[in-house]
Amino acid sequence: MNIPESIQERVKKEIDFFCKSLPKEPGELYEPMRYMLSLGGKSIRPVLLLLTCKMFKGEVKNALPAAIAIELFHNFTLIHDDITDNSPLRRNSPTVHIKWNSNVALLSGDALLIKSYQQLNKTPAKYLSSIFQLFNDAALKVCEGQQFDMNYETKNRVTIEEYLNMIRLKTAALFSASMEMGATLAGASGADCRKMKITGESLGMLFQLKDDMLDVFGKPGKTGKQSGGDIIQDKKTFLLIKAFELAKGKTKNELNSLIGNTKIPAAEKVKRVKNIYEDLGVEEYANKQMLLYFSSAKKSLAPIKTPEKDILLALVESLLDREV
Amino acid sequence: MNIPESIQERVKKEIDFFCKSLPKEPGELYEPMRYMLSLGGKSIRPVLLLLTCKMFKGEVKNALPAAIAIELFHNFTLIHDDITDNSPLRRNSPTVHIKWNSNVALLSGDALLIKSYQQLNKTPAKYLSSIFQLFNDAALKVCEGQQFDMNYETKNRVTIEEYLNMIRLKTAALFSASMEMGATLAGASGADCRKMKITGESLGMLFQLKDDMLDVFGKPGKTGKQSGGDIIQDKKTFLLIKAFELAKGKTKNELNSLIGNTKIPAAEKVKRVKNIYEDLGVEEYANKQMLLYFSSAKKSLAPIKTPEKDILLALVESLLDREV
Repeated sequence: MNIPESIQERVKKEIDFFCKSLPKEPGELYEPMRYMLSLGGKSIRPVLLLLTCKMFKGEVKNALPAAIAIELFHNFTLIHDDITDNSPLRRNSPTVHIKWNSNVALLSGDALLIKSYQQLNKTPAKYLSSIFQLFNDAALKVCEGQQFDMNYETKNRVTIEEYLNMIRLKTAALFSASMEMGATLAGASGADCRKMKITGESLGMLFQLKDDMLDVFGKPGKTGKQSGGDIIQDKKTFLLIKAFELAKGKTKNELNSLIGNTKIPAAEKVKRVKNIYEDLGVEEYANKQMLLYFSSAKKSLAPIKTPEKDILLALVESLLDREV
Repeated sequence: MNIPESIQERVKKEIDFFCKSLPKEPGELYEPMRYMLSLGGKSIRPVLLLLTCKMFKGEVKNALPAAIAIELFHNFTLIHDDITDNSPLRRNSPTVHIKWNSNVALLSGDALLIKSYQQLNKTPAKYLSSIFQLFNDAALKVCEGQQFDMNYETKNRVTIEEYLNMIRLKTAALFSASMEMGATLAGASGADCRKMKITGESLGMLFQLKDDMLDVFGKPGKTGKQSGGDIIQDKKTFLLIKAFELAKGKTKNELNSLIGNTKIPAAEKVKRVKNIYEDLGVEEYANKQMLLYFSSAKKSLAPIKTPEKDILLALVESLLDREV
């Protein structure tokens, strides 16, 4: 992916420092944090935050605590979501609840969430309350989105609108907050902050749609996750909802017989649902939807004329083609 | 208990208002919060915070957000601890993970923790960063304490010192932070804030020791919890550690055969361990330890001469005799 290396390096350095500063004891609380953070994610959210801050001529050092807080928060959500989704694999490694157990994953996730607030409190006093508010609002939306996602697993009919609202909460809210925070911490105008909030939301939507596609069509070695995990879990993704919309006759019957079916072996279920997706060409629909969000992000960035804007656009473009 | 009614009422009103302000959807996220908070705890932590604030002539309205945040945080820990401890009953009602399920309890707990930070952010700007820091530090200690508590379940030998350190983290840290926050929000001197920090810690230790005793000797209808839950879970409480210290010969062998034994029916295990506690008189030792903390709290409060000090002392005295 086209992530600006210097910024990504800066984030990585801070995360490494964070890991080294963690206490040794109790090991079951702090070791899973170190483990999770060492698996090396893309750091896309903190990079977006810092890049936005630079785009508005802000100082990176003012935005660094919030950037790290966002990354820690994101990792907290991964640890807890992996428990609820019963996911065995993350970033090509066993998930925390598999490597340790669910109780350890629960508690170290909690502590990581608190640690993210500890980072946030290093934000310059002048911005503290507003950054705190953006962070809290986004964090709650992430929980709401995750709950809707869970509810939809057992709900028969989920509309595209419900799905889009769900990922707006679960994923786009944090992207949106990252970019709005970046602008806020650069002292950008209210209008510019709002623009970044909207841009971030579009990028988050695009990112999640791509995530749904990679879950089915990605290479497991690259995505680092169990292939077809969403299908196994009956997740109502864009692909599945679209497939239900398009499928007719025998195909519809087959899809109906596969979804919610816990008796059929996981690998077979994934294979058969994937075949239906391919037959119906649902991937194309998802691509079109992603391009809509890309256009929308480009449009809201149009008035901005700084070198960082082009870096950001290149990054977004690479989000469309990512394999990880 | 001797909790000043006007302050407790104020807390209750705020909590009711908080519950009413929660969104309706997704119900699985917000309903468990309303449920847990409606079960009516003692609100001892926010009362201590507000009382300390008043003791130093502070304004209650400045301290109210932090007080509510502490109460929400405490309820978050109960929801998550009940999952890990597999507790069926809390405040005479089914625990959240029993009434709904573990995934719902996990996520609504997370959201309640975030909600507590949302409350905290209503603290006057002048105090925000320092209150934030006290809150975060205590919150982390609570997680550390809970992890040690879990670890000790399967550890054969736990010393009284290890136990005291564990409850200092798990319980006393939040009492300590409540009182230090109350003093801070009243603009008290650094020396007075530190004094309240120490007093709060003593009260927390005393409170947890009493909790351990109520778990075994309390009336289930009053405590609202499963009787002997600690014994069933092999929790290394003061009582059990002391019993191991004192027991000899046949008694020691029986204790050894009971602890860690998952085959024996729960009710029988509780009854037999309780009999050993009674034979050895371990309750007396715990009472003595509690009185030590009571003296220590009285001593650090000695220089203070305001009516609220006497209210606080009456409250502490009633903690020693509480049945709930």
